[in-house]
Amino acid sequence: MKPLHFHFDFISPYGYFASLRVEDLAARHGRTVAWHPMLLGVAVLKVMGLKPLMDTPLKGDYVERDVLRHAREHGVPMKRQPRDAVMHPLACGRALAWVNRHCPDRAAAVTHALYGACWGEGQDLSTPASLEPVVGAEVAQAAASEEAALLLRAEIDASIAAGIFGSPTLVIDGEPFWGVDKLEQAERWLARGGW
Amino acid sequence: MKPLHFHFDFISPYGYFASLRVEDLAARHGRTVAWHPMLLGVAVLKVMGLKPLMDTPLKGDYVERDVLRHAREHGVPMKRQPRDAVMHPLACGRALAWVNRHCPDRAAAVTHALYGACWGEGQDLSTPASLEPVVGAEVAQAAASEEAALLLRAEIDASIAAGIFGSPTLVIDGEPFWGVDKLEQAERWLARGGW
Repeated sequence: MKPLHFHFDFISPYGYFASLRVEDLAARHGRTVAWHPMLLGVAVLKVMGLKPLMDTPLKGDYVERDVLRHAREHGVPMKRQPRDAVMHPLACGRALAWVNRHCPDRAAAVTHALYGACWGEGQDLSTPASLEPVVGAEVAQAAASEEAALLLRAEIDASIAAGIFGSPTLVIDGEPFWGVDKLEQAERWLARGGW
Repeated sequence: MKPLHFHFDFISPYGYFASLRVEDLAARHGRTVAWHPMLLGVAVLKVMGLKPLMDTPLKGDYVERDVLRHAREHGVPMKRQPRDAVMHPLACGRALAWVNRHCPDRAAAVTHALYGACWGEGQDLSTPASLEPVVGAEVAQAAASEEAALLLRAEIDASIAAGIFGSPTLVIDGEPFWGVDKLEQAERWLARGGW
């Protein structure tokens, strides 16, 4: 069975929320998950011509409220707040892109470790060195490599070419579902094989 | 019990989808619905500084797919397509704003009639005269009045002042839920009185 493709940006708390549920969802239907880092800064700002979510009038205030409400409802640990100093996702994204190429069996664990440290515990993971306590020396050093930068760039190019612009987006056999609020519908799609 | 405040733009197919479910949702909790027309063109373009949804690269394509997928899943009639010539919501919005002031007991029926004719049947409701077969001569004529224009403007100003920027947005005792995909969470909020 083909894996479900889970696209997300470490900057995105909605991606964090969905990352905690997507493996169970996949497993209920005999599927696995492929973890794809993206950078909304490239897709949203450059391709779509929009401004950052939290800087958008009205929407920024709503998203702050919605994120906190979601975390409370689902009991998700979240020490980082939506309005905290911006979380720089580059090192995390490069680390995961490198893991996907060199040790893909670790991709799920690395994703959970990075998301948990950043959003759950509020750690600053903005540099490769800061990743070491979370994912180990090898991956942290790899995140600083030119290869990791190129691998992340390739992930982002592939995502945008596939029309993906938001975090999280779950792609099931080519069908995209954008948003943590879409996981229920995505699961119905999976169960029914589409409609 | 205070009514649930349902804010929507007749231009929005997601507002149409939600309009078909919101009364049942409210009734399950002993509530009624207040129907508030808005114009995304004012909130999104002028206040938020964004571009129209269907003109946004990547997102426009996704929304088209998502709208059609939602209509198929829920069996919602929809002859108008997301990519059809833009639906001008001004006459519909003004008609409902006038109804809200002068005969609010008709607001639900007028909303359903206008949404059904426009999105369900694909009728062009861009002028006050075009509303007459759908909502009758009195409301159609009122939609052309200066009073209706001012009443719709007041609805929009109040929505934006309350931080509402998207269609649909359901406000439950001051708590906003944006998107048809949020109706399930909104109902849990209603059942539990928040969390």
